[in-house]
Order: sequence, then C-alpha cells, then structure tokens
Amino acid sequence: MTGLDPVLKRLHLKLPFPALGDNRSHEKRLRDELTSIVSTRPFIPLDVLQRLPECLYAANYNVQVALIKAECGWQVASCIPRDKNASFLGLAIDLGSTSVVFYLINFLTGEIITTASYENPQRAHGEDILERIIFATQGGLKTLQEEVIQLINKAIDDFSKEYSFSKEDLYYISIAGNTTMCHFLMALDPSHICKEPYIPTTNRFDLISANELGIKINPNGLIYVLPNVGSYFGGDLIAGILASRMAEREEISMLVDVGTNAEVVLGNKDWLVACAGAAGPALEGGILSCGMRAQEGAIERVKIDPKTLSVEYKVIGNARPKGICGSGIIDLLSAMFEAGLVDQTGKLIPNRDPKRMKKMNDEWAYVLADEDETSTGKPIYISQSDIKNLIRSKGAMYTILNVVIQSVGIDFSDIDSFYVAGAFGNYIDPQKAITIGMLPDIPIERFVGLGNSAGKGAIRALLEKDSRKKMEEICDKITYLEMNVRGDFMNQLTGALFLPHTDLSRFPTVSKRLGLK
Amino acid sequence: MTGLDPVLKRLHLKLPFPALGDNRSHEKRLRDELTSIVSTRPFIPLDVLQRLPECLYAANYNVQVALIKAECGWQVASCIPRDKNASFLGLAIDLGSTSVVFYLINFLTGEIITTASYENPQRAHGEDILERIIFATQGGLKTLQEEVIQLINKAIDDFSKEYSFSKEDLYYISIAGNTTMCHFLMALDPSHICKEPYIPTTNRFDLISANELGIKINPNGLIYVLPNVGSYFGGDLIAGILASRMAEREEISMLVDVGTNAEVVLGNKDWLVACAGAAGPALEGGILSCGMRAQEGAIERVKIDPKTLSVEYKVIGNARPKGICGSGIIDLLSAMFEAGLVDQTGKLIPNRDPKRMKKMNDEWAYVLADEDETSTGKPIYISQSDIKNLIRSKGAMYTILNVVIQSVGIDFSDIDSFYVAGAFGNYIDPQKAITIGMLPDIPIERFVGLGNSAGKGAIRALLEKDSRKKMEEICDKITYLEMNVRGDFMNQLTGALFLPHTDLSRFPTVSKRLGLK
Repeated sequence: MTGLDPVLKRLHLKLPFPALGDNRSHEKRLRDELTSIVSTRPFIPLDVLQRLPECLYAANYNVQVALIKAECGWQVASCIPRDKNASFLGLAIDLGSTSVVFYLINFLTGEIITTASYENPQRAHGEDILERIIFATQGGLKTLQEEVIQLINKAIDDFSKEYSFSKEDLYYISIAGNTTMCHFLMALDPSHICKEPYIPTTNRFDLISANELGIKINPNGLIYVLPNVGSYFGGDLIAGILASRMAEREEISMLVDVGTNAEVVLGNKDWLVACAGAAGPALEGGILSCGMRAQEGAIERVKIDPKTLSVEYKVIGNARPKGICGSGIIDLLSAMFEAGLVDQTGKLIPNRDPKRMKKMNDEWAYVLADEDETSTGKPIYISQSDIKNLIRSKGAMYTILNVVIQSVGIDFSDIDSFYVAGAFGNYIDPQKAITIGMLPDIPIERFVGLGNSAGKGAIRALLEKDSRKKMEEICDKITYLEMNVRGDFMNQLTGALFLPHTDLSRFPTVSKRLGLK
Repeated sequence: MTGLDPVLKRLHLKLPFPALGDNRSHEKRLRDELTSIVSTRPFIPLDVLQRLPECLYAANYNVQVALIKAECGWQVASCIPRDKNASFLGLAIDLGSTSVVFYLINFLTGEIITTASYENPQRAHGEDILERIIFATQGGLKTLQEEVIQLINKAIDDFSKEYSFSKEDLYYISIAGNTTMCHFLMALDPSHICKEPYIPTTNRFDLISANELGIKINPNGLIYVLPNVGSYFGGDLIAGILASRMAEREEISMLVDVGTNAEVVLGNKDWLVACAGAAGPALEGGILSCGMRAQEGAIERVKIDPKTLSVEYKVIGNARPKGICGSGIIDLLSAMFEAGLVDQTGKLIPNRDPKRMKKMNDEWAYVLADEDETSTGKPIYISQSDIKNLIRSKGAMYTILNVVIQSVGIDFSDIDSFYVAGAFGNYIDPQKAITIGMLPDIPIERFVGLGNSAGKGAIRALLEKDSRKKMEEICDKITYLEMNVRGDFMNQLTGALFLPHTDLSRFPTVSKRLGLK
C-alpha cells in the first residue's frame, strides 16, 4: 500500500550478545540499536523494561519490537521474540452520539480487518446531546464516561474473540467524535459548550495512555482523540476534512455534514473557513409527524410519477414501512414539488391528488402509504406543518452554505468538489436536495458522498503518522464564522424559505427543468 | 540563588476572558499563553484538564501554574487560583542499601527545607546486597520494591505532617542509588548484575509517573532515577560526579567512594575513566573482630601518643564504646604504625606495649579499650588477623586507584582535587589514610570530603533542570575499566600489602616523617 506510514512500526532486530567487552544493559543494547534506526532516542516504558531480560534470553537476542508514535517521538510498546506469532493492531472509532462504529486495523498491511457498529449506551440519558450535557452537569459525567469506556472495552473483547488476537496486540486507538462526545469520553466538564460564548474545556487532546483511561489493550497502548475547533465543530468534522483530503489540494472544496446542526467547511490547502448552525431536526425526520431514524421499516427512497402521480418507495430491510427517514423526506418533498403537489411557497395543492390529500388534525396532509400498507396500521404522511418545518430546515442549510461562500467572496460554481457527510448525508440524492433548494445548483458530478467520514479520518490518523500534525495544522488554519452572531443570516433565510428559492437565478437547472418563473 | 533553574517552574498568568470573538477552549487559552512563555507547546495531563474549567472560573482567570520538565519539554502539573496558598516542593532521595536519606526541597527558593534518614527495610532480606539479589530472584523482587515504595510514602507522609503541606504540593522526586537498589525500586530483574558479564537490565531510566510507581505525591508528579554506567557503577556515583562538578572543570580530579567496593572516577570535563573493584569489608570494619557500623557507641577517632603510648579515642554519641567503625579503624592502624606497635609488614610488635598486647584466640591482639571501659563488658581490640585483612583492603583500594591513574598515563601528583565520598568516606582523616598507604601521598589540602554525594547529586538533579542532560553526557563519556579482568592488578596488589607500600618513593612525606627506609 503506497504511503503507508502508520503510527506503529514493527522492527526485526538481532541484538549483539553481551560480553565482558560490551556490558551495556539490556535497555541500552536495545535503545542504541533503535536510536540508530529511528534517529531519535525512543522512550522505553517500565513495563517493557521489566519484561526485557527474560524476552532477550528467550529470544536469543533475536526480537521484534513494536514502536508507537508517542507525544515526543517513538516509544517502545513491546519487545517479543522474533519467532513469536503476534499481530500489530489498531482501532479507529467513530464516536457518534447515536452509534459508535469500530474499525479494526492491521498496522502491517493497512487493511481494515473488520468493522462493527454499536448503539451508544449514553442514549439512555437523552437522545439529544443537550439532555446528556444537563445529565453530566448534574453529576452524571463519570457515568457517561464509564458507559463509553465500557462500550469500547466490549467492542475490543468481541473483536479479540472473533479474530483470536490477544489484547496486548492492540496498540493504538484513534477516536473521532463531536466535541461534546469527546468531553464525555474524557470526563471533561461539558457545561460551557452550550452556553455563550460556547467554550469547550479542550480543543487539543494530548495522547493519553490506554491504562489511564481504563481501556484494556496493550499496557503501553495510546489513545488519540482528534482535535476540535470549537463547541460545534468537533473532531468528527476534522476527520471529515482529513478523509476528503480537501485541505491538501489546490482546488476549492466544500464539505457539509448534514444533520440537526449543519456543519460546513470551505477551502483548500491554503485556507479554510468553517461554520456550524442549526438547520433543525426536520431534515433528519426528527420532528415530523411520521419521521424516524434510518432503521428497518423506514422509507428511504420515494418516487412520484409527475403525470400519473403513482407512488413508489423503498423501505430499509424491505419490510413494511413504519415511518420515513431523512433521505426519504428529501426525496418526497422533491418529488411532490416536481409533481405539482406542493407549490413554490410550500403550500399543499389538495386538488392535485384528492385521493392522497387528507385533512389530518385540522390541516392538509399528503398520504404516502395508507394504513393497509404500513406495519403500524397507521398511515404515513407529510402534513402542511411538516412541510413548513422541512422548508425552514432546508432553507437554513442553504443559507449557512451561502453565508460561508459569501464570506470569502466566491460563488458555488467555484467549488470543485462538494462533500456530503454525516449520518444520513451519504444517503441523500443530491439531485433531489438541489430541487428543493437545500444544496446549491452545481453540476451533479461534483457531489461526493463521504460515507462515514469520521471513521475514515480516524483510520487515516492510524495509518499516516503525520496526519496528527496535519489535523493540528487544519485546526490552526480554520477561520470559524460564528453563525449565531451574523446579522444577515435572518435576511438571507427569508429568501430560502421557498422551493427552491425566491431568487430562481440561483437554481437555473431546476428552474429550467420545472419551467419555473 | 544564582543559577537556580529547577525542574519546576511556577508561573503567574492572567488569562484573557472568553468572549464570542475569542472562544478558544480553556485548554487552548492556557496552552497558548504558556507556549508563548516557554517557547514549546507544553503537555497538559488529563487530570489538569478535568479540573481546569472550575479553577479558571474560581480564579477569575488569574492563576498560578506549575510546569515540570517532562520527557519532552514542559508539562503542566497543576493550575490553581493565584491567591491560593500553595507550596512547590521536590524530594531528593539517596537510596542507600543501609539507609535511605530524604531531602525536602523548596523549588521556589532552592532551599533544603529538611532532611531525614530512615533505615532501609530491605535489610531484613540481607545486609549484603548480594543476599537481596538472591531473594529477588527467588520471587522476592516485588516485595523489595514494595518495601522501598512504602518507605518513600512514609517519609513523604512524615514530612507533610511535620511541615503542613499537601502531597499535591510535591511534584518531582529524584533518586540516586546504586544500580541494584534502583533495580529493586523499579522491580527490574537484577539477576544478571552479579553474573559475568555483569549486565544490568537498564542503564538509563526514563521519567516515570509517580502514580505508576505507587508513590503518593501530585497525581502528575514525576520520578527521575539517576542513570548508571554498569552493574558496579551506579547512579550514586554519577550523583557524586555531579556533586563534585569534576566533569565540568579543566583540572583533573579523582573521586573515590570508599566502601566494600571501591568505586573510582578520574578525569575532567573532557574525559572520564572509571573503575570499581572489591576492596573488602575490612575497611568499613565489617569483618573485624570488634568492627561495627558508625552508630552510637562506635569509636570513630583514635590517637596514640607515639612516646607514652597513651590512648585517646572518641565515641559516637559520647557513649561508652562497644566497637570501632571505619574511620576509627583507619585512625587506629595509622596511629599504631606511627607508634611502632605494628611494623611495615603489618606484624604486631607485642613487646612495644605489653600492657595492651594480649593473646586472643591464639594470636596477638592490641587492646584499645578493656572490658571495664566498654558498654558490652568485653574488650575492644584489633587482632593480627584483623590487621592482615585491613592491609589487604587498603592495599586493594590503593591498587585500584593506581591502576586507574596508570591507565591514562598520569601521576597522582597531577590530581588537582581528590574527592572522598561514601557512607564513611567523609569521616576518614586523609592524613591517616595516607600513612597506612590507602590513599596516595599528595598534599593534604587537595582532599575534599564530599559528604553525602548521592544526596547532593540528587538535589542538583532537582535544582538544575539541565543536570539530567549533564549526567547522560557523563555516562556517555565514561570509559569503564573492568578491574576483574586486568592482569596487572594482582602484581600491583602485592606491593601494596605493606605499610604504607613496598615502594617507599610513592609515599615520600610518610617515609620522611616516620624515618622509613
């Protein structure tokens, strides 16, 4: 694999035998040899020293040494006989508030051995991260920490059983999460994250020993938590920047993490501008009448024939539907708009399809699946209020993107690559998101789904030892725009509360295709 | 105090308040300020981060920060409100096999606040260090470690009660001990120290957290153990070199640690030659009929009037005598030689003082104090065999010194300063040691007692942060002569088994004073 320069280096060494003319200690014998290879004097932890003489005698001075990149240069993490069968593993973690995803990495090959996703046990203290912050400030911080540490230990346990390796073979863990999640992990006071002026306890995490954190891997193993730029711009986003490599290219890219908060980065290798703002939970389906998370039973794709108005949808797990998730909602609004079921102001047109338009709780709603089709026995629909919420969310998202673009005096057309990240970002159909005016009207091939960008960035942090420096540089380079204090946001938002926008010149291909005026 | 540049730096900082335009995290706010002062980015341990927000709010951003010199640059060890009354303390330890001496240091002033000596509890497993190594290899290593850690914790406890400080105020500990004692402290395999080719497990100790070792000081506190050059040339000697500053001067110095093993260093700022060899326990009184350690009741000074042959002696604690310690024995043999009670071959002359010469166990002995004078009701004497042992030991000592001198092709007269260190080295009267041919016949004013050189070196390691580098350089510079494998040692020794020596030209002032031929 090209460019593989991971945070762990495995060396085979044949040390000279001790003799009366060479009575260097075991430590010095090893250290001299290593220093000549890695050019700086490596740190040797006590645990390694304590086992060293026995290992050297057993190995006849023929050993394999694992070096890991520590806070200041290389550190010996293990010294074992050369003929001993051992693995050299790392773990990358995407520490999400809903799910925690683990990637087991082989340092010698760069290969992802396996991956697994677990529900975040902290959800018991609140689905919303704000609720968890309140729980933390009321004495629950240690509990939140313990839950996530236990989860990490469980994942390691499961992997080590399934793939038959010793926990001593696991040397390094990199963790990407939002600022609050990383504070919980480290039991750092999160109380000022949600209060003006929104101060996290820490932006940069120094390496910490796995032991100190109670994570059961090699006793000399290290934990790296990706840095954040602020309370609302966390290590998950920094991981995304790393995963996209946008900060390493000449061309201008934009990255957006779509969710309740829209987090946006714009820039290239020379400059980066970032912003985060509330887009609202409607985009993720969170507060809609029939919204749900992207689990089995969620409608994730919707098509409406503009002529016959017949409906097709796709359900996760091919089950009977019980709700509609983020990507389905964007598809739905886009399709309804294209089919004339909703007008440019977002108003439902009941007589366009009287069969599906029903009054629900004193307002009009469009029924996507009636009670016979669903697994709950209740219809799945989108109400006039839902659409209003949805338009407010997509409008906020577009406005945030536009404010960032304007802040550096460029146009959307100047963007070479537009990365869409986030829990459901990968599942958004960009064409549909453009149609409703949520994403800018640029050529469709410029959109790139990043997949699990936090996980990808965390993996890169393991496999490229210089990526830590890169991330620190990214953090130093980012100019963070405080959206909450920008006066023009509200004015711009008003124009974006249309489908796709009051200013149709911003969406030329949509206007042309749908004949909008 | 000039040149005070200790391993702990206390800084007063007034941090800027957070604001919407400056929403750096607490960590970054602190780190940016520190980086601008100490010019490298300091490490901030998790423990400090966890307490940081509360401290900053309580202190109104007006704080005092303790930085300690860690493995790679400065590390924040504490951040507390500026108006909080706190001490900033260090502890230097002379880790001897018999006694462990503690020095409590004020980092802000460089002052030694207090000192205390405790018996080494490991003596229960053998007075002799070899017995303890055997005990260690038979499963006792952890016990030996725990005993010394407990002793350190007890001393800290005692100090903190007597001087009313919090253990959090103690930040750094430096420890000087011989190679074996340091291996016990760290639970490192000592079994190869006493077997050819005499390999210690480690020569250089990296800094270790006090927590990891179970030493109860500030949770971010560090432990520094002075390096050794080999199994028989330990950190106590390196401390002595540091304390004497011989490796920082142009002039040539010799340093000898007098004990069962004679450890010798010769050199200046450009070169250092070292050697260790067995002088035998007789010099310390260890195996003599009436020998004892330098405790209450030990005769430490002896005078015999060469004409009247009347005896004067001084007893430690002004008590009735119960034995004779190292410095007393050297005084005694010297005085007996000067008074003609023993001849140049070491043979007692019974008829020179028939009153004090008695047959004991079939051999002649010289009675220093008869049974009426002693606290034991038994006489204190030196027998013919004792003298033979003593001459063998002093001869070995002189021979070691001479081999080292010859190895670099200089004479004793080239030595500018001759440092005498070790448990009883400080109490030796150099004139008496010259008279018996144990130390070379150079002008008396060139002899300098070093006192507790291990303790002094350990203190210097605390108060001069660059001394660690200095010691590593000293270790790298030392050429170690393996005495056991030098063929001419035995030949030379034969000549030294006389009082003062067969070659009287080596002891011109003694020969002249005593009219020897």
